[in-house]
Amino acid sequence: MNFNLVLNITGKVLMLEAVAMCLPLGVALLYNESALPFAYSICILLAVGFALGLLPRKKGFFAREGFFAVGLIWLLMGFFGALPFYFCGGFSSFVDCLFECYSGFTTTGATILTDIEALPRGILFWRSFTHWLGGMGVLVLTTALLPSMGIRSHFLIQAESPGPVFSKLAPKQSHTSKILYTIYCVMTVVEVILLKLAGMPLYDSFIHAFSSAGTGGFSNRNLSVGAYNSPLIEMIIAVFILLFSLNFAIYFLLLCRRAKDVLQSDELRFFLWVVALSTLAVSINIFPVYKSAWESFRYAFFQVTSIISTTGFATADYMHWPVFSQVIMMLLLLCGACAGSTGGGMKCSRVLLGLRSLFREIRQIIHPRSVSVVKLDGKVVEESTVRSTLIFISCYFLISLVATLVVSLDNFSFSTSLSAALTCMSNVGPGLDVVGPAGNFSAFSPLSKLVLSACMVIGRLEIFPILVLFSRGAWRRT
Amino acid sequence: MNFNLVLNITGKVLMLEAVAMCLPLGVALLYNESALPFAYSICILLAVGFALGLLPRKKGFFAREGFFAVGLIWLLMGFFGALPFYFCGGFSSFVDCLFECYSGFTTTGATILTDIEALPRGILFWRSFTHWLGGMGVLVLTTALLPSMGIRSHFLIQAESPGPVFSKLAPKQSHTSKILYTIYCVMTVVEVILLKLAGMPLYDSFIHAFSSAGTGGFSNRNLSVGAYNSPLIEMIIAVFILLFSLNFAIYFLLLCRRAKDVLQSDELRFFLWVVALSTLAVSINIFPVYKSAWESFRYAFFQVTSIISTTGFATADYMHWPVFSQVIMMLLLLCGACAGSTGGGMKCSRVLLGLRSLFREIRQIIHPRSVSVVKLDGKVVEESTVRSTLIFISCYFLISLVATLVVSLDNFSFSTSLSAALTCMSNVGPGLDVVGPAGNFSAFSPLSKLVLSACMVIGRLEIFPILVLFSRGAWRRT
Repeated sequence: MNFNLVLNITGKVLMLEAVAMCLPLGVALLYNESALPFAYSICILLAVGFALGLLPRKKGFFAREGFFAVGLIWLLMGFFGALPFYFCGGFSSFVDCLFECYSGFTTTGATILTDIEALPRGILFWRSFTHWLGGMGVLVLTTALLPSMGIRSHFLIQAESPGPVFSKLAPKQSHTSKILYTIYCVMTVVEVILLKLAGMPLYDSFIHAFSSAGTGGFSNRNLSVGAYNSPLIEMIIAVFILLFSLNFAIYFLLLCRRAKDVLQSDELRFFLWVVALSTLAVSINIFPVYKSAWESFRYAFFQVTSIISTTGFATADYMHWPVFSQVIMMLLLLCGACAGSTGGGMKCSRVLLGLRSLFREIRQIIHPRSVSVVKLDGKVVEESTVRSTLIFISCYFLISLVATLVVSLDNFSFSTSLSAALTCMSNVGPGLDVVGPAGNFSAFSPLSKLVLSACMVIGRLEIFPILVLFSRGAWRRT
Repeated sequence: MNFNLVLNITGKVLMLEAVAMCLPLGVALLYNESALPFAYSICILLAVGFALGLLPRKKGFFAREGFFAVGLIWLLMGFFGALPFYFCGGFSSFVDCLFECYSGFTTTGATILTDIEALPRGILFWRSFTHWLGGMGVLVLTTALLPSMGIRSHFLIQAESPGPVFSKLAPKQSHTSKILYTIYCVMTVVEVILLKLAGMPLYDSFIHAFSSAGTGGFSNRNLSVGAYNSPLIEMIIAVFILLFSLNFAIYFLLLCRRAKDVLQSDELRFFLWVVALSTLAVSINIFPVYKSAWESFRYAFFQVTSIISTTGFATADYMHWPVFSQVIMMLLLLCGACAGSTGGGMKCSRVLLGLRSLFREIRQIIHPRSVSVVKLDGKVVEESTVRSTLIFISCYFLISLVATLVVSLDNFSFSTSLSAALTCMSNVGPGLDVVGPAGNFSAFSPLSKLVLSACMVIGRLEIFPILVLFSRGAWRRT
């Protein structure tokens, strides 16, 4: 492992985090709040980042360095990102600050806060801004802003980007990153404008645009999006979180006027079908609760998009819905958004690949001598990709179950423990019972909070970087 | 698909089932109960079996025929096996009879009965005897008794036997089957004798020996094994269900004085470690409930062995234990027994293979150019086996979740719906809440009961035979 180079890059990202923190610092000043929590944090970040940058560099950056660096960077970024929360004094322990910050960067949106509106606006701005930064990925941002890091940066991006295969949009990685961030910024700005026009205060519009862009779920209101009780605002947010949970390669293809290629995407069609069918099923199932077809559709559509995109905004408490709808929510939570989006979960393409490799297995039993391949978007998927997808799915459940076991030590109900682990792994936010849409994670023990934070990072980085970081083999010097 | 040959074999198995039914018929006569339910069922089975045997035979029996036949045979066997329940009149609907019978043959042990002791003794005998028949497998029995069916019978046994790889003990399949059934019978008889000596009535000894041999879980007492409140009986049963959840190849190796090979088994060591650690963890966790180290160990050990062996006997209601212990029970339920045993679940060897292929994936990231293999018992596992294992694990969860969705229509709690699906897939019996150790499945709708019955068969036959049976490709004539 080329530690020096890894730490060098880590230093750069931490300095970039310091720069990013200037934005909430400005917001704090604008609202006449104390800017000290940010000032302290920025100083610490710059000092650490600068120190790491002084290490002598050696050549050699491969897949293992990419995975290792991404794992390390995300762990440290969340740690230092929690400092403003700690310095502001509105949190009861540093573990709570860590939980909130990992929840932010990983775009989970699970909170330990019981009264969100009591916090300063600068802090809440940073809280939602971490969603935006983590959504598209901090390393995508780093490579977009610092193209000449002297490394093969696609190893970094591959490790950070969600999905079984990584689609390059341009020959150069820095170019791809720039394209992605440009699309991301433009869509975020459009959402801010639309939310403002729909009657949301400008500050709230930024908060909710950041949270929906990163498919995170933090709101500055205790009642989440439900606080505005405006069908128009809900519809704007629902449509945008759907857009942000599609593969960004789609927008690039559309910009290149290759709409035909977009329609060929199996994942897109699968995703839209799941959204449509789930909305229909939930609408029918909750009709007896609301007694109005429009209201049922309104709440069903918002909640379905909110959960499958792994955002976790709430306009209704689905714990008051029939269990069938709750189970649908849990299934959507596991499935998650599309690969190459800002959403979490296992990703639709992985679910599709899993199903198709099952069908292939059946075909092989029936015709043992025929050669059968797994296809996606009309192209043959490499066997190594199929294999790592299947390992991913199996381990996703395995890790969630182990986390459930640890969380269950707090003796909350089985549904609470399991859904807390799953919602953190999938980067959604709400679960069932105690951690339902009306609940929060404040009651858990510090151990559970740390384990759930770990789940968020493992889920966001899709398991492998964190495992590489903690594997013995990776720590050998080369 | 060679339908005629498949139906021919099906006919033979159904006639064998008629023969097996003579035993409970005898018990009914012995206790002066009506033998008519059995007499009717035997006539129907013989008629159908004879009719199917008349079909002209064609050559050609391969893997697909094996999987198809096993799927079909298990579905029909459960259907006809439910007839005595239906004719006896003690069940409220035919769906209930089906549920009970599939639960028997698949060695699940989930019941829809609220008062078990009200049923005639012949019926209860048949109910537990289905465990014994289904435990080692009806096709293993068929090939042991009818060696010359004119087909390559290992295709049948492969499809029926649990585990990722099938170990042949003798060159001829019929010989292997005979060895397996001999060990099985001897162990069952020893258990009957020991239970009788420990003070259990002879009839009850047979019932509980059948249920533990098949790792099923049906008891003739409403309070299950807890009714006897005898530590000695509990210990005998716990040890035997542990023995029955080991790979039977182990006993064969011991008979051949190859104890060294036995100790090399990774699965055996994994299984014993899991049992030991779980017992320890649960004992400590439930100590505050019982306030006695011995009592805590006694209940923990019995319940851990009962669940990991997928038997499902109860001496204590773990719904009164802390949630941590409940989660351990659910994890053990998923993991299940060893391959080649009479137990269910995903099987320890699959969990091990899943974990090892994850480690291999990490190794491949760190050293991309090295060739890395997955090993079990010191031998390299074929890539196709690794792949089908991973597909199995992924689909196990997927099917359980889909079943949960259907069951949730009944609007029982999330834990009830999920654990009902999981416990049926894993052939255990008890789950959580409504279907906990003190509960039963009677409150579910007919749809849920049918879906859960399907889960039991899918779980017992390890997914693929049932999927082959319902795949379009398998229905083409060859």
